[in-house]
Amino acid sequence: MDDLKLVFNNKSPMISVGSANFGQGLVLIAGPCSVESETQVRKVVDGIYGRAHILRGGAFKPRTSPYDFQGIGLEGLKILNSVRETIPVISEVLDVRDLPIVSEMVDIIQIGSRNMQNFPLLKEVGKLKKPVLLKRGMQATIEEWLSAAEYILYEGNPNVILCERGIRTFESYTRNTLDLNAVVAVKQKTNLPVIVDPSHGTGRSELVTNLSLAAVAAGADGLIIEVHPDPKNSVSDKEQALSPGEFNTLSEKAKALRCFLESASL
Amino acid sequence: MDDLKLVFNNKSPMISVGSANFGQGLVLIAGPCSVESETQVRKVVDGIYGRAHILRGGAFKPRTSPYDFQGIGLEGLKILNSVRETIPVISEVLDVRDLPIVSEMVDIIQIGSRNMQNFPLLKEVGKLKKPVLLKRGMQATIEEWLSAAEYILYEGNPNVILCERGIRTFESYTRNTLDLNAVVAVKQKTNLPVIVDPSHGTGRSELVTNLSLAAVAAGADGLIIEVHPDPKNSVSDKEQALSPGEFNTLSEKAKALRCFLESASL
Amino acid sequence: MDDLKLVFNNKSPMISVGSANFGQGLVLIAGPCSVESETQVRKVVDGIYGRAHILRGGAFKPRTSPYDFQGIGLEGLKILNSVRETIPVISEVLDVRDLPIVSEMVDIIQIGSRNMQNFPLLKEVGKLKKPVLLKRGMQATIEEWLSAAEYILYEGNPNVILCERGIRTFESYTRNTLDLNAVVAVKQKTNLPVIVDPSHGTGRSELVTNLSLAAVAAGADGLIIEVHPDPKNSVSDKEQALSPGEFNTLSEKAKALRCFLESASL
Amino acid sequence: MDDLKLVFNNKSPMISVGSANFGQGLVLIAGPCSVESETQVRKVVDGIYGRAHILRGGAFKPRTSPYDFQGIGLEGLKILNSVRETIPVISEVLDVRDLPIVSEMVDIIQIGSRNMQNFPLLKEVGKLKKPVLLKRGMQATIEEWLSAAEYILYEGNPNVILCERGIRTFESYTRNTLDLNAVVAVKQKTNLPVIVDPSHGTGRSELVTNLSLAAVAAGADGLIIEVHPDPKNSVSDKEQALSPGEFNTLSEKAKALRCFLESASL
Repeated sequence: MDDLKLVFNNKSPMISVGSANFGQGLVLIAGPCSVESETQVRKVVDGIYGRAHILRGGAFKPRTSPYDFQGIGLEGLKILNSVRETIPVISEVLDVRDLPIVSEMVDIIQIGSRNMQNFPLLKEVGKLKKPVLLKRGMQATIEEWLSAAEYILYEGNPNVILCERGIRTFESYTRNTLDLNAVVAVKQKTNLPVIVDPSHGTGRSELVTNLSLAAVAAGADGLIIEVHPDPKNSVSDKEQALSPGEFNTLSEKAKALRCFLESASL
Repeated sequence: MDDLKLVFNNKSPMISVGSANFGQGLVLIAGPCSVESETQVRKVVDGIYGRAHILRGGAFKPRTSPYDFQGIGLEGLKILNSVRETIPVISEVLDVRDLPIVSEMVDIIQIGSRNMQNFPLLKEVGKLKKPVLLKRGMQATIEEWLSAAEYILYEGNPNVILCERGIRTFESYTRNTLDLNAVVAVKQKTNLPVIVDPSHGTGRSELVTNLSLAAVAAGADGLIIEVHPDPKNSVSDKEQALSPGEFNTLSEKAKALRCFLESASL
Repeated sequence: MDDLKLVFNNKSPMISVGSANFGQGLVLIAGPCSVESETQVRKVVDGIYGRAHILRGGAFKPRTSPYDFQGIGLEGLKILNSVRETIPVISEVLDVRDLPIVSEMVDIIQIGSRNMQNFPLLKEVGKLKKPVLLKRGMQATIEEWLSAAEYILYEGNPNVILCERGIRTFESYTRNTLDLNAVVAVKQKTNLPVIVDPSHGTGRSELVTNLSLAAVAAGADGLIIEVHPDPKNSVSDKEQALSPGEFNTLSEKAKALRCFLESASL
Repeated sequence: MDDLKLVFNNKSPMISVGSANFGQGLVLIAGPCSVESETQVRKVVDGIYGRAHILRGGAFKPRTSPYDFQGIGLEGLKILNSVRETIPVISEVLDVRDLPIVSEMVDIIQIGSRNMQNFPLLKEVGKLKKPVLLKRGMQATIEEWLSAAEYILYEGNPNVILCERGIRTFESYTRNTLDLNAVVAVKQKTNLPVIVDPSHGTGRSELVTNLSLAAVAAGADGLIIEVHPDPKNSVSDKEQALSPGEFNTLSEKAKALRCFLESASL
């Protein structure tokens, strides 16, 4: 993987989004798997305001079956856009043809796990300056993940944030196996910020808080957490969503831990 | 996976491409990983003519690193198109924006392993009538693979050919682990034709012939084999390519085996 | 793996057990997962007689939970021993302290998947001359599997038969992923006979016959198949057992295929 | 897995070994992969004294190839035994026949990853009262791991300590993928203490400290760390061993973190 010149030698710029500075302090991103309605989004924003720096929400959803809920698309983007005065937003782009509108309506463009090696999409987001959250493919090696980042940097966009979200293994008790080894390795080898998604990384809400703390202790630059105003009635990923209250408890713990680690120089 | 109505209940139409009828007899597809030049393609066509039913060749290449050879793109498509009077061709589409031109210049559109869950692309090829070869994702379960096929059928294109090409496991001696279990399972559960790619499924040319025979004995409807006029000098995948002579020996063995299996009703 | 001198340079002796010659023709081993009673074993022997060369049956069973059926132990060995005049038998040894009695009562000693790296056991069977069937660990690389064989050869026992039985992957539709790549690779690299266990390799009886044919076409030297007189009422592994009638159909197909492959020099 | 009555309902006794109380505070175990000589062991003990509660050291080593260093066996046990007045020791048993002598010479008996499903060995350690460290198999699901613990509890030994040490996945940059999801899940579901081995879990010394902190934050009850007086000249596992100085820095960080987590009730 030694040919990844940009990933390894990049003097990572400060990536600032609203009150968040990736790579400096702990950035917290929270929100629902899917944008369902304006009411739902407003409830989440109210619930996480002051705790999370950025709101996540899926408008276009990559779903295994065509009979699964596919997201509300453009309408969802508009809902996200409508709260941007309150909090910056991140949302996933699935289709290269949607990139202009997604880019216009969000503060960070998410490339999801299934698109980590969608090279046309990587090249197009590379031509923008907008920050890109690049999730690790569930089957991707560290080398492949960094190579995907290299595609974006190579096209001229230095604002890449990496996100570990669990890999696919033989273990079926958890949805994925969160790979904190990779977080530490990538932090050591590159200057890119690395955040962790323990919601997908475990697939079980009862494991999310402890794995969040583990991620912070490993050195992650941030967390992205699925939060729904009423997890049991979420249209997708209900097993792994936290309520706003649970998120707020998590956020206090994570921030306290980060603060301790910095002050104690661990 | 019981909700996959179309995949399970589809009365698969006969998918005929040139002299090949998928689902009837053994279909052989052969050609280089990457289209390099007209000379190279002509040499391959000469070398496999009369043995293979269809020519494969990559014009747009999905490559792990931006510094790897990316394919010659449109020029490659034109070279493939120029031999279609002699032999039908299959090539991969990576970008939904390229679909019109790819569709015009090939006889079968390939969705590669990394794009098996590129849902916008699945939906677009589903709106065509042109046959689609859907490779299994290297990390995809059988259920996910069939769900991807359901996307295409759901949009109205019944001409889906499945292709097992090896899955990613802990074994590193081979590039992937060819999963013939999946071939038999899918043949039993659906009416879709299933072909096997032992070139990617092993990543080692010395294993290709025996795994081809295994695939035929398992009940595969066809094989797709990487063939290069000069494997050692292939710009990509040189470890797994056969020479035309090696392919021809393989094709004779595979056809003889298929003929025996049919005559003996095994 | 180049240091495996014995595995790679061994002039494999002919391993003859009853009417079976491993490495020459196709050897068929059949029988129940667990020895349940003398009646059951006699029924199996009657059912497979003349088709299978060797009877398999578990007396000591490695079971995930202490509450699962553990096998009938010594009593099971005695039942197996009682039919050896009719057909040779193979059974698994779990405990190095049981090796003398197991060795006395069976014709081939099986080292199961979970014991492939039980080095004390490998060393002890290496001090015998009795044939040893070494199953690949469900998590073992080809290199680790051959290294385990090297332990046995190194102690002086050249009569090692390798058995591929599926590896553990992310796919959950099948119990394991049968790895025929490994069979071909090992056949090419060593002189050791390699047989295939499609019963464990698939975990589904409806897949066993086709994968058996695939294994034969790949070049396997034999098959080991779970057969129970009444599969639905088997105390263990009922999903993957064949009835004697199903086995006999399989055996005819497998032998016909092998015969064809030899006559056609495929 | 609901039938694992003992694992789930066990009122775990306090397992006390020297100054360590498993389940109360953070237990640190450190020492070389292999016992090489009395001098080496004395150097390690001097180096970790006052920081680690328990010394680890392999006398009998499970090695992939018969040509790898196999440990110095009984001599190694005697060396470990000779330092027990200074610090308690843990060492691995491979062979059920060695259990009496191992049990006599160590304070905690280790069942290694390759023996997690060596059921005769599990049953025999279950008949003792001595604490048993049960490493998770590198291919074992959480359910299989807990079932192995159930074997030991079922035989009457309640003093089981679980150890997560990484699982085998497709990622090859690290030796294993440390699965902290499993640590949190097992802590939530059982009363058994769970410690973490980041040395094997990463296979890279530069990752060990950060993953140790992650494990502590996840809620692990302890750490087991490979420490060698001269890592570069270790006869085994040199890539993952820390020097005593590096271990001591790690131990201070881990203890400070644990102290913070307890005081802040995170």
